[in-house]
Amino acid sequence: MRRLAVLTSGGDAPGMNAAIRAVVEEGLHHEVDIIGVQHGFKGLVEGDYLPLGINHVSQSIRRGGTLLYSARFPEFRELDMQKKAVDQMTQAGIEGLIVIGGDGSFQGALALTKLGFPAVGIPATIDNDIPGTEYTIGFDSAMSAATTAIDNISDTAASHNRTFVIEVMGRNAGDIAIWAGVATGADAILIPEEEFFMGDIVRRVRSSRSHGKDHGIIVLAEGVMGVEEFVKEYAKEAPEQDVRGVNLSHIQRGGSPTGRDRVFATLMGAKAVDLILHGQSGIYLGISSEELAVFDIVETLEKNEHKVRDDLFELNQALTDRY
Amino acid sequence: MRRLAVLTSGGDAPGMNAAIRAVVEEGLHHEVDIIGVQHGFKGLVEGDYLPLGINHVSQSIRRGGTLLYSARFPEFRELDMQKKAVDQMTQAGIEGLIVIGGDGSFQGALALTKLGFPAVGIPATIDNDIPGTEYTIGFDSAMSAATTAIDNISDTAASHNRTFVIEVMGRNAGDIAIWAGVATGADAILIPEEEFFMGDIVRRVRSSRSHGKDHGIIVLAEGVMGVEEFVKEYAKEAPEQDVRGVNLSHIQRGGSPTGRDRVFATLMGAKAVDLILHGQSGIYLGISSEELAVFDIVETLEKNEHKVRDDLFELNQALTDRY
Amino acid sequence: MRRLAVLTSGGDAPGMNAAIRAVVEEGLHHEVDIIGVQHGFKGLVEGDYLPLGINHVSQSIRRGGTLLYSARFPEFRELDMQKKAVDQMTQAGIEGLIVIGGDGSFQGALALTKLGFPAVGIPATIDNDIPGTEYTIGFDSAMSAATTAIDNISDTAASHNRTFVIEVMGRNAGDIAIWAGVATGADAILIPEEEFFMGDIVRRVRSSRSHGKDHGIIVLAEGVMGVEEFVKEYAKEAPEQDVRGVNLSHIQRGGSPTGRDRVFATLMGAKAVDLILHGQSGIYLGISSEELAVFDIVETLEKNEHKVRDDLFELNQALTDRY
Amino acid sequence: MRRLAVLTSGGDAPGMNAAIRAVVEEGLHHEVDIIGVQHGFKGLVEGDYLPLGINHVSQSIRRGGTLLYSARFPEFRELDMQKKAVDQMTQAGIEGLIVIGGDGSFQGALALTKLGFPAVGIPATIDNDIPGTEYTIGFDSAMSAATTAIDNISDTAASHNRTFVIEVMGRNAGDIAIWAGVATGADAILIPEEEFFMGDIVRRVRSSRSHGKDHGIIVLAEGVMGVEEFVKEYAKEAPEQDVRGVNLSHIQRGGSPTGRDRVFATLMGAKAVDLILHGQSGIYLGISSEELAVFDIVETLEKNEHKVRDDLFELNQALTDRY
Repeated sequence: MRRLAVLTSGGDAPGMNAAIRAVVEEGLHHEVDIIGVQHGFKGLVEGDYLPLGINHVSQSIRRGGTLLYSARFPEFRELDMQKKAVDQMTQAGIEGLIVIGGDGSFQGALALTKLGFPAVGIPATIDNDIPGTEYTIGFDSAMSAATTAIDNISDTAASHNRTFVIEVMGRNAGDIAIWAGVATGADAILIPEEEFFMGDIVRRVRSSRSHGKDHGIIVLAEGVMGVEEFVKEYAKEAPEQDVRGVNLSHIQRGGSPTGRDRVFATLMGAKAVDLILHGQSGIYLGISSEELAVFDIVETLEKNEHKVRDDLFELNQALTDRY
Repeated sequence: MRRLAVLTSGGDAPGMNAAIRAVVEEGLHHEVDIIGVQHGFKGLVEGDYLPLGINHVSQSIRRGGTLLYSARFPEFRELDMQKKAVDQMTQAGIEGLIVIGGDGSFQGALALTKLGFPAVGIPATIDNDIPGTEYTIGFDSAMSAATTAIDNISDTAASHNRTFVIEVMGRNAGDIAIWAGVATGADAILIPEEEFFMGDIVRRVRSSRSHGKDHGIIVLAEGVMGVEEFVKEYAKEAPEQDVRGVNLSHIQRGGSPTGRDRVFATLMGAKAVDLILHGQSGIYLGISSEELAVFDIVETLEKNEHKVRDDLFELNQALTDRY
Repeated sequence: MRRLAVLTSGGDAPGMNAAIRAVVEEGLHHEVDIIGVQHGFKGLVEGDYLPLGINHVSQSIRRGGTLLYSARFPEFRELDMQKKAVDQMTQAGIEGLIVIGGDGSFQGALALTKLGFPAVGIPATIDNDIPGTEYTIGFDSAMSAATTAIDNISDTAASHNRTFVIEVMGRNAGDIAIWAGVATGADAILIPEEEFFMGDIVRRVRSSRSHGKDHGIIVLAEGVMGVEEFVKEYAKEAPEQDVRGVNLSHIQRGGSPTGRDRVFATLMGAKAVDLILHGQSGIYLGISSEELAVFDIVETLEKNEHKVRDDLFELNQALTDRY
Repeated sequence: MRRLAVLTSGGDAPGMNAAIRAVVEEGLHHEVDIIGVQHGFKGLVEGDYLPLGINHVSQSIRRGGTLLYSARFPEFRELDMQKKAVDQMTQAGIEGLIVIGGDGSFQGALALTKLGFPAVGIPATIDNDIPGTEYTIGFDSAMSAATTAIDNISDTAASHNRTFVIEVMGRNAGDIAIWAGVATGADAILIPEEEFFMGDIVRRVRSSRSHGKDHGIIVLAEGVMGVEEFVKEYAKEAPEQDVRGVNLSHIQRGGSPTGRDRVFATLMGAKAVDLILHGQSGIYLGISSEELAVFDIVETLEKNEHKVRDDLFELNQALTDRY
């Protein structure tokens, strides 16, 4: 029987398990054995392999994190490590590898492809910052978790008529900040892609308050600046406000994936098996215009950049810009 | 100052309040007064009008249901009722109306347009069954609620090694069934758009069990048949299984809207104000390829049909079809 | 090394896994092997035994259902089945058994005790209907799930100014109805322990409406009558109201246990190991005045009845009885 | 008609709104007008009074925060402020005041009592740190929120085989840490009431790992030390572990109250009205042995201290102390 392997790499993202489960189920559909590689590329090199059946994955579709574990392994940039991985897989009868992770992880898949070993990627990162695809596994869950957390903080903000500055994840990409900010009716959203002026932020919050809102919410992507520093600067410009900062940190990463994350993870996991069985390699899957799409790793990662939803950012700018 | 009105009509859908809030905020941005019409078209005719400010809507963005209330009012099909509505609005200085609801509600908007009164629609129904747009307000929340409920039932199903048949909403459209079914790894999904054979359903569940899954999940859209009847027929064909039925009913309708529902509701609410201020009428908003889109009520509703995601349905068919 | 066994029996209840995990951890603390018996008393007789380690249980503390499975097995009332179970356990080197389940399951534990085999019970049932203890594992989770579901239905009820009748679990005990009813500000609560007059229920809902509440909520324990029948009778007496019924059914049973359920399950699981190691048998654990307590199975089950919180029922009666 | 007032003071706690709603409903029951005082004692002095009806409170039972707002107002310690408050209330025809808040807020109630103005307290603080009562409004919700947050972080911890240190609220009281720690199977719990040795904490985590747990969880009450400082010290002693810190901060405060918090808040809110109508003053309500109880403000606050659940702390100490 033919045999494929799957691993997860990089930061964990809710929905990774749904992708793994789909790989296993699609394997069964095609009579292909699926081997789970534990601890990412490290386990790939070391031969930390676990044959996966339905019993391993049937309950995991709804669980956060990754049942295959993930690990940092910068050594995989070295050629001899890559060759060792190919040897390990070849010895284990594995014909192809599915890599679930961020664009950094795709470089590992690409390296294997260059050595003649078939590998395809599935985009998974809560930050949504992979070029080409408009969606990555985990983003919808992280955005939902951030939205709920900001909702809850709004209860306290309103009870005390405070302004809360809430730091969400996104070192290079403002996606979580924009979506969760629009979803919670934030008075201001700050993202790494756009400059801001403190006076403008203060003006928006003041305008909300003067029109009858009983509290203020500012959503800050981590890539802009730290929340403590921001609060300090903001408070100087808006001394009349009672300002507090909260960093959502790891709370927005975990938890049961949303239906949307599980559905797209399932779609991509199954398709990855099909593509690799059809001889494809050096590609990754994604979603474009809400449909399944395939991207070339070299072409897409080199020539494209991830773009945030400008329309949603502009939307919030307009809504909080009042006469 | 210019003045627009907004109403909600048809079944409530999570995210309607986010749309209302966006209408109010965009009104403020353009220095336009927003009048909330209570109890749908009934209130429109009767003049049940409430001027809306930020204080009415700032907290509502995260609440299910509709703060403007909804009501059945088939009488609005009559011309004199429509004329009365136009009179009421004209007397109140209202220049245009935004109708948040299903495609039935859009007929009301169209009737007003034909009388020369500007009206635009915003699609809101948990069933996602409006032609043209690929998304309607409330669908993501309902799908999420159904997913979570099925997750919870899976705990009981697994504990007793049972098969559960779960009826979800969708009289004419299988969208909730397909998405929530894929999201929960259902052994079978039944939708009104596709015929099914009981023997095939039984086969899929048995195959899962024989491969090590400790329970069975069948997701049934209400448009196919009632869950009690289905369980009776299924149990005859699969006498070895302990089968139970559950109807999720109204549980999947309410609750706080998801971030996605709020974001798209906000986008459409704000745009509706812009369009009507620019003289548009007889149209409705929607999402196409994940972007904001505009549809002609007559053209789109007559010539198009809502289509479910065939790819997702096929995906589940493949995943549960094992050697 | 000494060896104890643990099984779950009866309907699954959130928190059972937390109790199992505590048994395993307390076993490790005392250097005692813990054997998990799968599928309840059926597995006990058949020798379906699984040695449990931390890896089996460390993640399960937060999961609903029971990882050891449960099953109906009325045959365990027969003496030869009980003897067979003792033989199986003795052969496996097991010295004592912990039974997690309802009062029916405790009869199984008692039967073993009478045969000289040490057994203790831990109360787990979402209905909270076990005499002696004021708390059973799963009740807090079920009550919370019912509360959230009623909250969500209230969104729809309010949007359409309807009255919803919501059936919750509780064949013999009104606990879920009372707690979830008070928690959601229900206009009326119906429990098997108290007679009711339809006219009185209608009066309470009408009074709420006349004082400005925009919807009605009636919580009905299943032991009173079916929700469909109730809605029919109610609608006759209150023809001015738009009345709907919903049965929460299995939705209130599953899902991640609440913190409270996990804490008390952990407390009882650990204590059960201690007691059985100290030679106790024929007893069950429970909570009395919010503290851990021990009850004699014969004494307590024969001489006592479960009592609902009259004070909470009266509280709701008073709150909805207005001038 | 007689007239009573209600206010909320101190940090917001989920369930405060349920208490306010019960005060209003019980007022209606007794034909007593209820006046809501906004912004705590500040509003009391300034006459910021709002007559409350069912329409203000029927939806609020399920909302976090306080609809009456809260505010810091240390000036209320001054006698002339207290007298001004009595004058304001007397002029408004108010005969008694219900204060929902922490023990600091009860001093305000006591001051009014000493001036001959009837006032009773209802304990509300997520920290659960009020003497006499074993329960305060908001604790169950905060404990639940912390439990869920730690669950979610565990997904990430397990995926990367990390140890997470999670700081929860509790400056003087370890209640949230103990309950949420036991509920999540924490390897170690640190509370202000108990000394700890870093080597002992490291030993417990190592023991879990060596027995097969794939991650570590340490729950730290804020009163012990800051999470960043703790992580630094811990990492020195356990260099083999990948350690991260998270501060749950305001995330554990807000959100919809649990059923339990709403039920006890309702019980105390209604009883407060009864007691004050019966001429009582200088007292506060609470829960003792899971039943409603009444405490004298002077007697109880002076002579008693809040005690954490030693049995639960010891429980966790035993469970993580392995051979």
